[in-house]
Amino acid sequence: LRTLKLTIAYDGTEFAGYQRQARDRTVQAVLEDAVAPIEQRAVNIMAAGRTDAGVHAAAQVVSLSLENAISCADLTRALNGMLPADVRVIAIEEAAIDFSARREATAKTYHYSIWNGAVMPPLLRRSVWHVPQPLDLEVMSSAAALLVGEHDFAAFQARGATVKTTVRRMLASVMREIDVGIVVPQGAGGRLLRFEITGRGFLRHMVRTLAGTLVDIGRRRRAAEEMLAILASGDRARAGVTAPPHGLVLWRVEY
Amino acid sequence: LRTLKLTIAYDGTEFAGYQRQARDRTVQAVLEDAVAPIEQRAVNIMAAGRTDAGVHAAAQVVSLSLENAISCADLTRALNGMLPADVRVIAIEEAAIDFSARREATAKTYHYSIWNGAVMPPLLRRSVWHVPQPLDLEVMSSAAALLVGEHDFAAFQARGATVKTTVRRMLASVMREIDVGIVVPQGAGGRLLRFEITGRGFLRHMVRTLAGTLVDIGRRRRAAEEMLAILASGDRARAGVTAPPHGLVLWRVEY
Repeated sequence: LRTLKLTIAYDGTEFAGYQRQARDRTVQAVLEDAVAPIEQRAVNIMAAGRTDAGVHAAAQVVSLSLENAISCADLTRALNGMLPADVRVIAIEEAAIDFSARREATAKTYHYSIWNGAVMPPLLRRSVWHVPQPLDLEVMSSAAALLVGEHDFAAFQARGATVKTTVRRMLASVMREIDVGIVVPQGAGGRLLRFEITGRGFLRHMVRTLAGTLVDIGRRRRAAEEMLAILASGDRARAGVTAPPHGLVLWRVEY
Repeated sequence: LRTLKLTIAYDGTEFAGYQRQARDRTVQAVLEDAVAPIEQRAVNIMAAGRTDAGVHAAAQVVSLSLENAISCADLTRALNGMLPADVRVIAIEEAAIDFSARREATAKTYHYSIWNGAVMPPLLRRSVWHVPQPLDLEVMSSAAALLVGEHDFAAFQARGATVKTTVRRMLASVMREIDVGIVVPQGAGGRLLRFEITGRGFLRHMVRTLAGTLVDIGRRRRAAEEMLAILASGDRARAGVTAPPHGLVLWRVEY
């Protein structure tokens, strides 16, 4: 038996999230079903972050135990030959026998993208949230910066979630404007904003609820400093809406 | 009667091209069908460039004659409210009564994008051509530069096309690497190359056939200078393959 570390990317549009479910199409099921005929048995593939329905991954990491001695390069080619075009294996490497993609991740980075303009560029519509209202980037940046460090993020957790602790440490948190000249021409009448956050761990819906709250702040419905009051309250009702899943990308996992 | 100049963008994936056809879904038909209930009669919408099936537009320009006195801003909102998400009206302005988006265009710019790496990032797959083989960007750039000026592009025209003259003037032509850090993370194992060409007019399939030939040159199957010999030959059989439509974007139209 050997343990492999796979870096994968997916377009979450047509997936009901990472985790296998009885009926719906999931990334885990599609991956496991591609490995099974090579391994000649069912396998279980654990991910660093269980992304929700519609959420994308640029470099998700998953771990897999395999009896087959196929080389990493051949397995990459074989899997990409069998997988649908919306999931790709970027790289495979050998890992310690007890490696767990989830347990050993030291940091994860998520990107949440926002198109701030009257009209949504069609080619961005599957991976960027459209916010047509004017946004004040400066106050959004100030509010994003307040998230760095250890906080109780209970107010930003999906309702009904149960975890031992809602305290998480954020290592970086910025909201910035992206130079978008490579994806839309000048005169497209908008700008691309991106919330980039790195933490040791995240609660369910946390990045999307932070993004929704940052947009409220950008629309000047709340002050930037209110971010700290919302954190302190632990009250989900005080935070903003959960931004839609398609703007979110699991960007990087560190070990 | 008034004449309007509309700047539109579309994701060409689900369209059988710009031009209306009896059966298939086209950009022209979708646009004309959105204007008809406002104008209370059928309209004819001419485009600066008739893009083929699968080709995208970041800023296509079309012209439209209207009797209705609706303001440009209201018409933009009304059309975007009725159009599907894969076509958007970016801007509408009043034009001279005899304005023709096609006849009066002085230059058009097309971008052809190539992902040069082993594995295609899933979120790019609808708008970028995947070329996994090693490509020599330097020779591709040299070959692209040879296209500037007036040439007979008969060798790069779709077979069976009939036009009065196959001579066209190119104002700019570059092949370059795009900084792709905003769309894929470091370690994605590839690079994004883009062929950017501006001309007063183009033949059918011309940009895609030039892109296919540039890739042949990048793969070192032909020398960069052969571009001139292919032009001089006027022989379609000497040019490379027609690159797939999904890598092509009509980027800008000038007047």
